[in-house]
Amino acid sequence: MIKDRLEKMRLLMKREKIDLYYIPTGDFHQSEYVGEYFKERNYMSGFTGSAGSMVVTKEEACLFTDGRYHIQAEGELQGSGIHLFKCGEANVPTEEQYAEVYMRTHEKIGFDGRTVSTAFVERFLENTGLSEHAVVYDKDLVNDLWANRPEISQEEIYVLEPWQTGETTKEKLKRIRESMKKSGTETHILTSLDDIAWIYNLRGNDVKNNPVFLAYSVITQENAYLYLMEQAVTKEVEKYLQTSGVEWRNYEKVYQDIPALCGKNTILLDKESTNYTLFKTIPDQCRIVNQINPSTIMKAVKNKTEIENTKKAHIKDGLAVTRFIHYIKENADKEITEFEAAQYIDNLRKNTEGCFDLSFETISAYGANGAMMHYSAREEGCAKIQSKGFLLVDSGGQYREGTTDVTRTIALGELSREMKKHYTLVLCGMLRLMNARFLYGCTGRNLDILARGPLWEQGIDYRCGTGHGVGHILNVHEGPNVIRWLNRTGARECVLEEGMVTTDEPGVYLENQYGIRIENELLCVKDIKNQWGQFMKFECLTFVPIELDAVDVAYMEKKDVELLNQYQNLVYEKLSPYMTEEEKKWLKEYTKEIKF
Amino acid sequence: MIKDRLEKMRLLMKREKIDLYYIPTGDFHQSEYVGEYFKERNYMSGFTGSAGSMVVTKEEACLFTDGRYHIQAEGELQGSGIHLFKCGEANVPTEEQYAEVYMRTHEKIGFDGRTVSTAFVERFLENTGLSEHAVVYDKDLVNDLWANRPEISQEEIYVLEPWQTGETTKEKLKRIRESMKKSGTETHILTSLDDIAWIYNLRGNDVKNNPVFLAYSVITQENAYLYLMEQAVTKEVEKYLQTSGVEWRNYEKVYQDIPALCGKNTILLDKESTNYTLFKTIPDQCRIVNQINPSTIMKAVKNKTEIENTKKAHIKDGLAVTRFIHYIKENADKEITEFEAAQYIDNLRKNTEGCFDLSFETISAYGANGAMMHYSAREEGCAKIQSKGFLLVDSGGQYREGTTDVTRTIALGELSREMKKHYTLVLCGMLRLMNARFLYGCTGRNLDILARGPLWEQGIDYRCGTGHGVGHILNVHEGPNVIRWLNRTGARECVLEEGMVTTDEPGVYLENQYGIRIENELLCVKDIKNQWGQFMKFECLTFVPIELDAVDVAYMEKKDVELLNQYQNLVYEKLSPYMTEEEKKWLKEYTKEIKF
Repeated sequence: MIKDRLEKMRLLMKREKIDLYYIPTGDFHQSEYVGEYFKERNYMSGFTGSAGSMVVTKEEACLFTDGRYHIQAEGELQGSGIHLFKCGEANVPTEEQYAEVYMRTHEKIGFDGRTVSTAFVERFLENTGLSEHAVVYDKDLVNDLWANRPEISQEEIYVLEPWQTGETTKEKLKRIRESMKKSGTETHILTSLDDIAWIYNLRGNDVKNNPVFLAYSVITQENAYLYLMEQAVTKEVEKYLQTSGVEWRNYEKVYQDIPALCGKNTILLDKESTNYTLFKTIPDQCRIVNQINPSTIMKAVKNKTEIENTKKAHIKDGLAVTRFIHYIKENADKEITEFEAAQYIDNLRKNTEGCFDLSFETISAYGANGAMMHYSAREEGCAKIQSKGFLLVDSGGQYREGTTDVTRTIALGELSREMKKHYTLVLCGMLRLMNARFLYGCTGRNLDILARGPLWEQGIDYRCGTGHGVGHILNVHEGPNVIRWLNRTGARECVLEEGMVTTDEPGVYLENQYGIRIENELLCVKDIKNQWGQFMKFECLTFVPIELDAVDVAYMEKKDVELLNQYQNLVYEKLSPYMTEEEKKWLKEYTKEIKF
Repeated sequence: MIKDRLEKMRLLMKREKIDLYYIPTGDFHQSEYVGEYFKERNYMSGFTGSAGSMVVTKEEACLFTDGRYHIQAEGELQGSGIHLFKCGEANVPTEEQYAEVYMRTHEKIGFDGRTVSTAFVERFLENTGLSEHAVVYDKDLVNDLWANRPEISQEEIYVLEPWQTGETTKEKLKRIRESMKKSGTETHILTSLDDIAWIYNLRGNDVKNNPVFLAYSVITQENAYLYLMEQAVTKEVEKYLQTSGVEWRNYEKVYQDIPALCGKNTILLDKESTNYTLFKTIPDQCRIVNQINPSTIMKAVKNKTEIENTKKAHIKDGLAVTRFIHYIKENADKEITEFEAAQYIDNLRKNTEGCFDLSFETISAYGANGAMMHYSAREEGCAKIQSKGFLLVDSGGQYREGTTDVTRTIALGELSREMKKHYTLVLCGMLRLMNARFLYGCTGRNLDILARGPLWEQGIDYRCGTGHGVGHILNVHEGPNVIRWLNRTGARECVLEEGMVTTDEPGVYLENQYGIRIENELLCVKDIKNQWGQFMKFECLTFVPIELDAVDVAYMEKKDVELLNQYQNLVYEKLSPYMTEEEKKWLKEYTKEIKF
């Protein structure tokens, strides 16, 4: 089936004289997760992971994906004839590098320009020395061959309440306009869905688990235009926008409106998120100031209201996860499947007051499945839990108070010495980053080794970043804050600011053996200020106990043991007031102090 | 006197219609340390530190320097009316930022274009939006007012022997020409003195303690031109150059030759090191490829011969420093001055076979003077050593086998609990970085926190990088490898490669109290390679014992104690074969194991 599709694709490429066709995982907004309508790469390759892109040439079809998906992609691509590039491994090119090499000896590259960023195209042209004429960006070839393509989503949009946001749209627009003045820009084009949701205090349901809605926005000193799917706009939203001084227009109309809205102005936009087709509608006489959207930084720095609410969400969420741990440890011998375990924890969340969705599909991975960083258990054929080894559960909720993301690896019985060693190293890394004190100005690149170091010392690595930003009633993956040691192309380094929330999630992933990940969310706060400057630290938001059955103190330093005991005490303190006597008794034992 | 000079400068500025005149610490080669002839900033300000720059406007005269020199500059600038900008402190602008703000409302900026890098000028023009016409770069105003300016140095150049270099000039030129082919360039202009010394296997004596000579070089596929001071060229050098296929010409002639040598070629140069005046002589029709000089990376990666020799130098050097420690600890009550202590250790080095110079002026700083990172004790009026507190000695030698740099902080008697705490934190940081294991691809920004973290945890910082590259029979400060957490403008991040030598020197500097620094040199080597990639680690080159009298084990983790004991054992093992029985007995006790 995949082979048929590739054959059709090659015919279309021939018709359009395209030598290389590029299919990213992308909607028109550079979203990380996309609606069903946008899953072209999935349709063309059969690979269902959230990240990865495809390149089709006359000679071959290639899929590029990162370390989280190497194992899964190998399985899903079997029999398709598609060549898998395991990005991140030594000497494996990225899709950009691959295309650059190929295009040295070919003429035309094609893609749907709405699904790639302007920065991507410009980098590509610069690196290859190709002219713009080598790019065919106005053809969506997958659309031409995709029978029964899903409809584009237009779910209803709703308005957040003031107690949830802590800042009105008018106030947010004022700050953005001040920022525009500072950068000397007159028109601001915005395409990233979470930025738009944040600015307008609106939420939607067009991407699974991400409460965003399809939209573009253009902001000037006088006006704010919001481009929305017509069916998504309720009376309530219409009225709210009117009182907020926002004019809404039809989603697709933005491409026609841009020339008039831009005139000869100086334009503020982020080439990393603005799609190429939209960018090309901007008149040539406009000056472009390419900067991160002001709202991206503003959104990442959570305000007091958001922080207070988030803390409440985390207590509720911690209770759900802790109850799940209690349940699963006592029922490890009941032949529960991974899928049923996921259902159990999902139900605990869904029955929690204020929880309206999961923040992503729960990862419930037993044994060897834990080695797949983004494993998803299917109802049919998934593994059964046994009373030995590890169950890795990575999950989170969307609450009316905030968004959560937490991972625990649970010991269900017998563990090897190696398993305990690896668990303990991951734990030490997680604790050391969580308890870091650092001077203001540090980025995630400066801190990553705190979490990764204990593993590196033993010659082990995890092929992904250590942590990502988390949205507020928004996407569970949010930039620009991130903890990773390597620089990604196009990635701007982000100083960790007071109010930013970032995950701390080192891990060990051993193919065909097991996976371990421990993840807390950390709020960046100010620490002491003295002659050396402003020190920063983290306040932990996640309160879920650590698995002592998997800890081998031989791999800890004295300080690690102190940090662990402190954390466990805090977990008991925060959660026990909401627990039954039986639960408290269990938690007391589960969080008991250990000795160095 | 300084005031007179500033007055004269302002008259000259008026004559030339220059609003802001900029005086960096620079020769024509962007050297860190410069010959007497080039010390214009020193002459104009009275500040003698090795780093810093000066800005003169109608309204004020300003000196900008970094954390190593804040205390010293405060003293030296007293009464001059010059305003000190302590760069690195919160809200203190750099000279570039200061000039950018000033030039928003003024027209002409002036400097001697030979003393500033092309990159500096281009960044400045871009940030200010000024045109090239706003820049007066062909006037050396300080020269016009500097009576009795020292002559430009032209010391004799000499040829290194094959057993010292491990690679001939012909081989080095071949590698550089291959690199030029790769980057598609035809002419390579080189101005950095250590690059040139390395390529041509020559050394000189035009900068104190840095065995370089004033030179420019132009390399093409066919020819290599070396521009030298005529008096510096001996018969031996002349003959050597001839047999190496190198043509030498007069130093100053390069400015006239560049147009013809460049023609319409594609030019490889490093804008960070090429001076602006020289850059402006390149014909407009040339295409410029701005890259780090290939030789800068090649030079930083030491070859087998260089490494073997360096190891020998370090044993000799370690013996000298250890003997000094022995001496000073036993004579702490003899009222020895800092200057005499420096003389003692300098003589130990100078009497060592193969040592032909110091690698920098010895820092012998007692008590509060230790807080000045680059303190220099004068014969008159320097402090007397007493049998309490710390003596910080940072020193190094130029040996026929290599260059060394080592710091030890020696306890001379009673120490406060705070002093021991700080010493121990510095020690732990030094040990942790020295024993790091990390994946290939790490830069100093990823690793810095290993050394700095123990201090940050206690709310302390040192206002400088953690480590710098070290040349081989060359400059003690050498790029591009560096360990620091902050990115400096224009700094390229350098991946730590096998064969690079970098110092590891955290510290504590408390103004008016004391200073602590412990510095070892580390050789980057390959560690295990497995499914996660190539791991790297460091091999310590420095063997000088650690001051146990200043260690408080309460601030160490178990691992730190193990690392310390391992290191001390190694020091004894490496040095004792060359020691007298009495020395051995002392060293055995001085390096005894401590318990956690």
